[in-house]
Amino acid sequence: MKAIVIHAARDLRVEDRPVEEAQAGQLRLSLATGGICGSDLHYFNHGGFGAVRLREPMILGHEVSARVEAIGPGVSGFEIGQLVAVSPSRPCGHCRFCAEGLQNQCLNMRFYGSAMPFPHIQGAFRESLVADAYQCVDATGLSSGEAAMAEPLAVTLHATTRAGSLFGKRVLVTGCGPIGVLSILSARRAGAAEIVATDLSDFTLALAAKVGADRVINTAKEPDALSAYAEDKGTFDVLYECTGVAAALAGAIPALRPRGIILQLGLGGDMTLPMMAITAKELELRGSFRFHQEFATGVELMRKGLIDVKPLITHTVSLAEAEKGFLLASDRSQAMKAQIDFSA
Amino acid sequence: MKAIVIHAARDLRVEDRPVEEAQAGQLRLSLATGGICGSDLHYFNHGGFGAVRLREPMILGHEVSARVEAIGPGVSGFEIGQLVAVSPSRPCGHCRFCAEGLQNQCLNMRFYGSAMPFPHIQGAFRESLVADAYQCVDATGLSSGEAAMAEPLAVTLHATTRAGSLFGKRVLVTGCGPIGVLSILSARRAGAAEIVATDLSDFTLALAAKVGADRVINTAKEPDALSAYAEDKGTFDVLYECTGVAAALAGAIPALRPRGIILQLGLGGDMTLPMMAITAKELELRGSFRFHQEFATGVELMRKGLIDVKPLITHTVSLAEAEKGFLLASDRSQAMKAQIDFSA
Amino acid sequence: MKAIVIHAARDLRVEDRPVEEAQAGQLRLSLATGGICGSDLHYFNHGGFGAVRLREPMILGHEVSARVEAIGPGVSGFEIGQLVAVSPSRPCGHCRFCAEGLQNQCLNMRFYGSAMPFPHIQGAFRESLVADAYQCVDATGLSSGEAAMAEPLAVTLHATTRAGSLFGKRVLVTGCGPIGVLSILSARRAGAAEIVATDLSDFTLALAAKVGADRVINTAKEPDALSAYAEDKGTFDVLYECTGVAAALAGAIPALRPRGIILQLGLGGDMTLPMMAITAKELELRGSFRFHQEFATGVELMRKGLIDVKPLITHTVSLAEAEKGFLLASDRSQAMKAQIDFSA
Amino acid sequence: MKAIVIHAARDLRVEDRPVEEAQAGQLRLSLATGGICGSDLHYFNHGGFGAVRLREPMILGHEVSARVEAIGPGVSGFEIGQLVAVSPSRPCGHCRFCAEGLQNQCLNMRFYGSAMPFPHIQGAFRESLVADAYQCVDATGLSSGEAAMAEPLAVTLHATTRAGSLFGKRVLVTGCGPIGVLSILSARRAGAAEIVATDLSDFTLALAAKVGADRVINTAKEPDALSAYAEDKGTFDVLYECTGVAAALAGAIPALRPRGIILQLGLGGDMTLPMMAITAKELELRGSFRFHQEFATGVELMRKGLIDVKPLITHTVSLAEAEKGFLLASDRSQAMKAQIDFSA
Repeated sequence: MKAIVIHAARDLRVEDRPVEEAQAGQLRLSLATGGICGSDLHYFNHGGFGAVRLREPMILGHEVSARVEAIGPGVSGFEIGQLVAVSPSRPCGHCRFCAEGLQNQCLNMRFYGSAMPFPHIQGAFRESLVADAYQCVDATGLSSGEAAMAEPLAVTLHATTRAGSLFGKRVLVTGCGPIGVLSILSARRAGAAEIVATDLSDFTLALAAKVGADRVINTAKEPDALSAYAEDKGTFDVLYECTGVAAALAGAIPALRPRGIILQLGLGGDMTLPMMAITAKELELRGSFRFHQEFATGVELMRKGLIDVKPLITHTVSLAEAEKGFLLASDRSQAMKAQIDFSA
Repeated sequence: MKAIVIHAARDLRVEDRPVEEAQAGQLRLSLATGGICGSDLHYFNHGGFGAVRLREPMILGHEVSARVEAIGPGVSGFEIGQLVAVSPSRPCGHCRFCAEGLQNQCLNMRFYGSAMPFPHIQGAFRESLVADAYQCVDATGLSSGEAAMAEPLAVTLHATTRAGSLFGKRVLVTGCGPIGVLSILSARRAGAAEIVATDLSDFTLALAAKVGADRVINTAKEPDALSAYAEDKGTFDVLYECTGVAAALAGAIPALRPRGIILQLGLGGDMTLPMMAITAKELELRGSFRFHQEFATGVELMRKGLIDVKPLITHTVSLAEAEKGFLLASDRSQAMKAQIDFSA
Repeated sequence: MKAIVIHAARDLRVEDRPVEEAQAGQLRLSLATGGICGSDLHYFNHGGFGAVRLREPMILGHEVSARVEAIGPGVSGFEIGQLVAVSPSRPCGHCRFCAEGLQNQCLNMRFYGSAMPFPHIQGAFRESLVADAYQCVDATGLSSGEAAMAEPLAVTLHATTRAGSLFGKRVLVTGCGPIGVLSILSARRAGAAEIVATDLSDFTLALAAKVGADRVINTAKEPDALSAYAEDKGTFDVLYECTGVAAALAGAIPALRPRGIILQLGLGGDMTLPMMAITAKELELRGSFRFHQEFATGVELMRKGLIDVKPLITHTVSLAEAEKGFLLASDRSQAMKAQIDFSA
Repeated sequence: MKAIVIHAARDLRVEDRPVEEAQAGQLRLSLATGGICGSDLHYFNHGGFGAVRLREPMILGHEVSARVEAIGPGVSGFEIGQLVAVSPSRPCGHCRFCAEGLQNQCLNMRFYGSAMPFPHIQGAFRESLVADAYQCVDATGLSSGEAAMAEPLAVTLHATTRAGSLFGKRVLVTGCGPIGVLSILSARRAGAAEIVATDLSDFTLALAAKVGADRVINTAKEPDALSAYAEDKGTFDVLYECTGVAAALAGAIPALRPRGIILQLGLGGDMTLPMMAITAKELELRGSFRFHQEFATGVELMRKGLIDVKPLITHTVSLAEAEKGFLLASDRSQAMKAQIDFSA
């Protein structure tokens, strides 16, 4: 079977790998759709990010849906051909953070397609994948493309849970890539009364508006637009910071009301922050990283029609066109989410 | 001008009252629509409830919308003819609970149409009403009937806020009168993943299903239906208890998961509860009473189309037919919310 | 080796049992001290409580300290002769509640000396005990009697954690048996500014005052004393309800301020509650049951001198006098905590 | 009467000011003791801090105790000669943050001795002070020096409340000036199980140890000492950051466990933070600024002997020696808190 393997920056290959068998508690899956994520692009364009660098060839991918092909011993509740969304979150279940219910902070996490540990954790962009049954969530009724959106959706559901109740709140989203746009969908679903979104690209902002932002602001064109929200110590209860860029965060702080919450989703390097304002307005900056049980929740919300991710899927390419998919996904002026159709 | 005055149980009169003038900070309003609430019905049918008894004639009503007729000195932001929803919550602003931001617990609350204090607080079912500007929320774009739903909606928004985040949670609603059905709308808007509702009336359950309950159960016909949710110590994260009846609450407890939250909205008398189960499953029973800032939030959510209360309004009568409206509203087999059109 | 076995109400026997060996991950312990708990007394005096009844002979006891006698394979960090406090909380580690970090709600809990499941879970009142290493917490520096208090202390630490922050709060404790008095110690340690305690026994109230209650009230002698705290909707932020008696809880409610928290620790049967007051004052009644990680925390706080449980230990008897110990422990006019010295 | 007036950096004068009379709701006070705070020192040494600069002469001081000299109309509960702690927090009571119970975020705050607004808010270092009765908290039984510590104590009580429950938690304090040392006292009072404190001065660290830190670290001498706490993603649940220096905060982050809380008390300028670690470990950085109701709580805790601030008062000078007091207070190698005795 074929797998999409990154060897170094801009050295992406479609290679043969042996098919594995489902052991006890496992399913063998035939991949349906894989979404290309920002971290995949970091490996593709730069060979890594920050201190995380490729040190051996690694199969990419962690946003995948698949169909059940074989069912291992002791597994029930699945049938051959069933569509499932596959969670890349594989905590150990035994460390102190797992024991506390903080599986996303597991000391021994084996998250698909990550070069953080060595040997690297191989990813899920492969025609045949063996996964533990607990990773597989019934996605019947969804398209395989939607099911492959469960992973980035879970990232924003996790952040939303980190925010506490959003019901009736005013929300600002900085950065309208897939995580920003899914944050808009999540915040709206959680009852936000007002959602304003910023970005530098009219293309992504148009999508943000389409999925429900009440107002979108191109901060390249309207650099002072947020100042209208700064009166009386600020307006927004919650900020989803999805850029990882200090200027975006610092620019949003005057618009946050006292005790406002900043959900930091964007991953950048060191950031210089206006700590005087953060301290005096008693803001709360909360990191938000990955997810765990939110994966199944996201699939359920999509299946019930309570969250609709279809507008985000702007491009679908075949496995043979994988590299084209990566190039497309890197272009924020025309792509939101590019996916690879493994069944094509 | 005419007002709807209760003198004793089943002694409802439409009487003349003098028109008042708007003072500084006030608006004079021409009433548009008034909704008949459960507490209005208690005065109408029984002359009070529990220890609260009518001791003098009292104008009923606290669910009202109106149009601006005159603007008092120092008031800005309103124009003549504008539709507003009028909050009946009038806290003192100075007691220790107001200072803590718990205005609904104000020691000196003057809530419209309440016989708790003496002299009673006169209500808002009157053709002409003078209100403080801060009570009046712009309802432009809503029908006057919808605007008059802002009050009961605020009750369920307050309960929802009391629940903390509902995002992705499983919710049970016992009792599908207006408060129960609005709880369904609120819980769905706040992101509940699953909502099950129970009642004894097929009529109200049909409405519950129409506004979004995933499943409705007539516990008169299916007394054991909730037991399917009791496995493994229970299913539901949150219960909106809207009946005030001990049997409804006690019957729901096995279906609540450990650490589940019970929002007690229904007002009954003393209730005998299974404290062993509440203690051992570490349930949390939280009283929820009235609202304050949630009133404006509810109007905003309706205006944005994020909550639609129109299906609840089953009957509208004219002021002349007020008593007929009260009789209709008392009949749970055919009425959800009966309203009085003061402009008719 | 000898064990204390309950066969039926008032049929307590000291019997021989075989010594077990420490397997991988385990320690073999020589029991030091065992404290007699209210549930032990229920088995002794009544053969059970509520629906929980003895159906076979059961070794009692779950409040124990011990000395390490043998160390099983793979265990490190212990040495022969070391004093340890032994947690009776043995969750499965795999059910959905364990995965959420709610080990005290484990679906497969094997808590020492419990007749809830059948076969019953045998207890720890035995001269030789084999326990998993994770159950054993270093108690060096404590007396064996203090170390055996770790279990009931953990119950009140868990309740205190359930309360959220107690810092600067006003606290009422109803019922001054061991759990009530340990609640006083816990609440004070957590920063409560004012602690008032009630009971019907002058003996227990004297102890409550000795460990730090600011005021104690014998409600048999001063039935109206709490009414002084009822002004302006009430005074106390938090109630530790340690009686399980409806009259105690109902009597405290007027003294609780709006949004006050009731921690229900006392285990009784059904209770009739004033739900109108609970709802209108928006009280929160939270069940609190057992503990898990709080066990180690309690040992640490005792070892640092931050909580001193010594005043509670009123009686110590030898293993041969076990029955006398149970009779003493049943007499609230002279005993707070009676313990059995297994090394005597 | 005399007042301590700052005209510019290093231009401190003791000047005459007219005595005022107590109006309705007010007390006229004879100052007892005034503590010199870090912000007083900023005005004294630098003429301000950050963008806040002296633009007119300003009476300094906001940490004061006093004796009642005259009682204005309508005030009850005070007697002549009574010692009171005087809160410098004077919110408007009407803005949206006051209405929410966030008085410390008042839009119209008149906090003593602040050059933030213009005209500046005059301070409390004056022999005669007229204050609103609500600012004055009975301090009977305390020394006037202790009573004057109520203000900085309230700052750390507020931060502690911002942390949520500290019961049984592990706490790190960076910076052991008065705010750091009071944080240690507050965290211990709130039930912290372990407290580690860092600073660059052996003098302040000795005081930190004396008031209860379990371990103190001079990071100038032991720069790597915190790395022992970084294993398995970190140890501390809560950090009180009392330096306002980026290096101190950044150096502490590896020692914080996932979901750890950073209480930012220290006021510095912009800070460059390791956002990748903050995001991936899901830390929460919470600003903490001033206080409101915590002022009275602190006085109560001191009066009950639950917090003892006496060890912090290292120097007391007379009004005539005010400048000497400011110079002493600026020397961290020998002074913790320097106070001025206005009655000397």
